[in-house]
Amino acid sequence: MKKQPIAIFDSGVGGLTVAREVFDRLPNEEIIYLGDTARVPYGTKSPRTVIRFASECVEFLLHFRPKMVIIACNTASSVALSHLRERVDVPIIGVVEPGARAALAATTSKRIGVVGTGATIRSGAYTDALKAIETDVEVFSIAAPLFVPLVEEGRVSGQIVEQVACDYLVPVLDEGIDTLILGCTHYPVLKPIIAVIARQGVTLIDSAEAVTARAEQILDEEGLLSDAAGSAPRFFVTDVVDDFAEVGDVIWDPLPGSIERVELGSTSLTE
Amino acid sequence: MKKQPIAIFDSGVGGLTVAREVFDRLPNEEIIYLGDTARVPYGTKSPRTVIRFASECVEFLLHFRPKMVIIACNTASSVALSHLRERVDVPIIGVVEPGARAALAATTSKRIGVVGTGATIRSGAYTDALKAIETDVEVFSIAAPLFVPLVEEGRVSGQIVEQVACDYLVPVLDEGIDTLILGCTHYPVLKPIIAVIARQGVTLIDSAEAVTARAEQILDEEGLLSDAAGSAPRFFVTDVVDDFAEVGDVIWDPLPGSIERVELGSTSLTE
Repeated sequence: MKKQPIAIFDSGVGGLTVAREVFDRLPNEEIIYLGDTARVPYGTKSPRTVIRFASECVEFLLHFRPKMVIIACNTASSVALSHLRERVDVPIIGVVEPGARAALAATTSKRIGVVGTGATIRSGAYTDALKAIETDVEVFSIAAPLFVPLVEEGRVSGQIVEQVACDYLVPVLDEGIDTLILGCTHYPVLKPIIAVIARQGVTLIDSAEAVTARAEQILDEEGLLSDAAGSAPRFFVTDVVDDFAEVGDVIWDPLPGSIERVELGSTSLTE
Repeated sequence: MKKQPIAIFDSGVGGLTVAREVFDRLPNEEIIYLGDTARVPYGTKSPRTVIRFASECVEFLLHFRPKMVIIACNTASSVALSHLRERVDVPIIGVVEPGARAALAATTSKRIGVVGTGATIRSGAYTDALKAIETDVEVFSIAAPLFVPLVEEGRVSGQIVEQVACDYLVPVLDEGIDTLILGCTHYPVLKPIIAVIARQGVTLIDSAEAVTARAEQILDEEGLLSDAAGSAPRFFVTDVVDDFAEVGDVIWDPLPGSIERVELGSTSLTE
């Protein structure tokens, strides 16, 4: 059981921020990663479609008999996690609850901002997770649909991205938040620019770090941390390999391990 | 045969600019439209994946026994049209060749700009189509990956979209072009802002108008234009209906006819 892999799933390339964090923090673990690059993005799609796609992805990953599945996609975590937990025996963690816990540990004013995709923000998942733990927290959410295409274009600095970031973030910063959750796995790449806009006194919560810390804690409690060296990560994508490798370089350069293309079948997990 | 529908396919909502043009110009024709909204966008995906998706979409549309299929998506037209023509008996037209012909009719300097998605521009389809007709034309291409997310966010005016448009377009305008092909069905929505940046003396070529004129010409030549009143358009989408209706309002308000959700199966057209 200890030697079974950790499976990580994302709609595309953004989850590499989580995979890299797991790789760095838990070097003994074997990583299996699936990026649904043929159907990315999820953040603009309906809950019904996101649940169907996420179910097909998790079905694929279960073939590797993982000891844990990490949903490294905020949209899928927000919309499909409870659906999947009801249907799968393996422990599944998403990025939302760990991100919410990290934010609550950081805040003193109990005024927390959340920036995410349209689907994540519409789901209200972060607000629900924050208020479930701390009822009197105030949450200010903002959907930032242009952040993902900006990162995927490699446009992570310069006037346009600064202006877009200001446009999205200044209204929530003006609410006097002291903590901002980066509620999409693409966003850590924009951290330098967001940090400048957010200024001193605002803590940025990176879901990649939060979910990895939570995964380590669970595996440690269950005695499931691997004690022998892990093998190289295996990356799977649903579109061609080259494009993934190219955008992947923006996040994790050079990408270790191997990349393979797969086609997903339908799954009974959707039912 | 005259009463059979015209089938229009797009990766999502952008093809509504074509459907509306057909609706206005050929009011006797029945329109069947499919938007692959669950897997949109195509413009960031590989040719292999775009061919697979486009084949599944056309397979679906063939069930309605159309007299013509219009690929109202520049990416699919650029990448999948010849593949589909080899496998389907019904006349299929894409937006690229009509757009190229309209641009050549408009230019006097024979210096033409093309703006499109990454996949469209990488395919070189417009350059090939232009040079196949007029060998000594000079073509200046630019990929504009942010235009689609900007339109889908409803952000069609203001400082950010102006700056993004300048960033993409000024380099090709500086090449002294007198004609600019809007090589994506989302872009006509940005025409007002692009017209200001392009200034006088630059003709904007709207693929929706060009492909509709070409469709009318073919149907007229073949004696296939309907001479009785058409029924209301039927729209099909692969993600939920509401989101399509909402973004559709940016392009065609109010959308006539009905919208239904469908799930696409696999198809032998991919082979």
